[in-house]
Amino acid sequence: MIVQKYGGSSVATIDHMKTVAKRVVSRIQTDGPLVVVVSAMGTTTNDLLSLAHHAASNPSARELDMLLATGEQVSSSLLTMMIKDHGYDAIALNGSQAGIQTMGIYSKNKIKTIDIDGLQNHLNQNRTVVVTGFQGVNEQGDVTTLGRGGSDTSAVALAASLNVPCEIYTDVNGIYSVDPRRYASAQKLTAITYEEMSELAALGANVMEARAVELAQKYNVPLTVAKAHAWETGTVIKEQSPMLEKRTITGVSVIDDIIMVSLDNLNNPTQDVARLFRALSAREINVDMISQTYVNPSTLSVSFSCNADDLKDVQKALEVFNQDVPSATIRFDESLSKLSAVGLGMRTQAGVAATLFDLLAKANVPFKLVTTSDISISYAIPKEKTKDAVNTIARAFEL
Amino acid sequence: MIVQKYGGSSVATIDHMKTVAKRVVSRIQTDGPLVVVVSAMGTTTNDLLSLAHHAASNPSARELDMLLATGEQVSSSLLTMMIKDHGYDAIALNGSQAGIQTMGIYSKNKIKTIDIDGLQNHLNQNRTVVVTGFQGVNEQGDVTTLGRGGSDTSAVALAASLNVPCEIYTDVNGIYSVDPRRYASAQKLTAITYEEMSELAALGANVMEARAVELAQKYNVPLTVAKAHAWETGTVIKEQSPMLEKRTITGVSVIDDIIMVSLDNLNNPTQDVARLFRALSAREINVDMISQTYVNPSTLSVSFSCNADDLKDVQKALEVFNQDVPSATIRFDESLSKLSAVGLGMRTQAGVAATLFDLLAKANVPFKLVTTSDISISYAIPKEKTKDAVNTIARAFEL
Repeated sequence: MIVQKYGGSSVATIDHMKTVAKRVVSRIQTDGPLVVVVSAMGTTTNDLLSLAHHAASNPSARELDMLLATGEQVSSSLLTMMIKDHGYDAIALNGSQAGIQTMGIYSKNKIKTIDIDGLQNHLNQNRTVVVTGFQGVNEQGDVTTLGRGGSDTSAVALAASLNVPCEIYTDVNGIYSVDPRRYASAQKLTAITYEEMSELAALGANVMEARAVELAQKYNVPLTVAKAHAWETGTVIKEQSPMLEKRTITGVSVIDDIIMVSLDNLNNPTQDVARLFRALSAREINVDMISQTYVNPSTLSVSFSCNADDLKDVQKALEVFNQDVPSATIRFDESLSKLSAVGLGMRTQAGVAATLFDLLAKANVPFKLVTTSDISISYAIPKEKTKDAVNTIARAFEL
Repeated sequence: MIVQKYGGSSVATIDHMKTVAKRVVSRIQTDGPLVVVVSAMGTTTNDLLSLAHHAASNPSARELDMLLATGEQVSSSLLTMMIKDHGYDAIALNGSQAGIQTMGIYSKNKIKTIDIDGLQNHLNQNRTVVVTGFQGVNEQGDVTTLGRGGSDTSAVALAASLNVPCEIYTDVNGIYSVDPRRYASAQKLTAITYEEMSELAALGANVMEARAVELAQKYNVPLTVAKAHAWETGTVIKEQSPMLEKRTITGVSVIDDIIMVSLDNLNNPTQDVARLFRALSAREINVDMISQTYVNPSTLSVSFSCNADDLKDVQKALEVFNQDVPSATIRFDESLSKLSAVGLGMRTQAGVAATLFDLLAKANVPFKLVTTSDISISYAIPKEKTKDAVNTIARAFEL
């Protein structure tokens, strides 16, 4: 048994979807029924979003979820028809029917539990189950969505509940050390650890959502990422192994549009910082890199970065903050990118950070913010310097 | 309190829908919260159907229902966003969330019960409820649809459960004695009885579904049909009244594409006829007009008409029948229309039928089948004679 997940580009048209149906059917023929998780067709989700923004200046979150959830219901219904048309039993289940209970706020829900009995019952009856990705139902019975990349999370969560492996099919043929669109000679990785993958995902590699990888790691779900419309092997995401640890840097990832916000003259440092992040969190803004400097023991400056999409929300949050802390002066830096280098090797091999700083200096790339984790270093750099920086690092580490 | 229903043409675009939202809001302002039932936008249902037929040669009924149901979920979500954008509380509910329990076979479900408590609770909290028309959920939790015109049925059923009147908004400004596209000088009726309306609906007037009118009659739901994007009065559908009984013929309706099937040489009349209609009903074919003639006491000929869309199903059903009754010879008449005249007056005024036969003869319109009910007469006539027949009758009865 297995869970397969097909992304939006793999089911963008009826013809694409028919190819997916054939792939599912060939799997049924060799290994029996399976669970398929499917995204909305092609650009459907964005089309629906744009419809909502034409409908209302401020589309209500509950109804937006209900609207967006139709995309996956369409694709799961159609894919099921196709599988049945091949003569194999199948059933389409939406999030509610698949027992996917969520919690949290609309459009960013988390899976709380999965009541797997109904789905298991279908499988026991030799019936392939096609589940709508990206969605579930909350305690009030509202249709809820899981946010961007939520279908990966649906697939991994179902695989974890069923204790089976998960295959993620997408429009790339695996995980690359660097996005091939940014660095043409980038190499495909045959294997990568959960940890590196979730770090890369969190840092902007668009192949899989970090949440989904973390979930896979937590429940030890074997994960494969491969191209839907090709029969070549993809990348296996698995536990740490001595072979994988040898690599210094496994990948470089870029998030293109970030902004940096700098606040000076915070005269009650502890309280002001707490107030600041409360104001940002009240608007569900994901703050990314943070740096703080004491100008003197009682005056603090804070900088943080976040997604450029959040600019308006940040401005609103800071207006509120500024009323409470009128001393604070606020500056915005736009047109920045976040460049990150990830590798388990950083944990054990000294000097990786030094090499990176050195490379950036030589390539004449200034940076506004730096953060490091156990296995990654990230820099906020001017957007126009991204290409130079990626090329320099990829060449130096033979990615 | 009231239930308003808006058809697909009334919400065909975001702009159309915004006009509907304004209409709903103006109602909220004068009378407080209401229930709105909404169809899928414009041609969405047909578009989805065509997608399904591209996906599979024989789309599975359960998944087809699940697919089609997305259309109303989109429009109810969007309309709710618009109402909320005007500053009024509203919530979108799909069939399952609105407590609409169905029974029967996929794509032709009937409403079994409505658990109205949740919906009533929203209304009590001064919240307008926007319900997806056309759908519900069956005992197994499957998404089910109510068949063509199902949104009217949803609206009337909700109005009956809440014991409030129902307004049906559509793209015509009321009920006409004859479809104005067929007879330009047709007059709009200010009132019509439930009985006449359900007869007209069953006989092809496309304004409202017969089932919905019958339901309204059964629960005595006051019904109005009016144009969504106009502020003029529509047609009231109500109980019988002496004024309404005076009219001889209230309306003429046409179903354009019907076929007639004639079976000869049925040598075991009673058994053969039972077998025939069992075979047809097994394929859910709605047989309409039926006539039978004994050639001699032991040999029967039967003719029946049905929708031309059912031709393939009829052929399959008759193949099975022919294996059981090899003596039967079968003929098909295609390109027929069904012309019906409806009026409460037929019940009390003699000679209406005679006048109609006389008019058809003078207009040189031959007929293949005739059926009469308490308040209607219907004829199967050659399709190309429809216009002549309608004109003759409409002129004679001043419709």
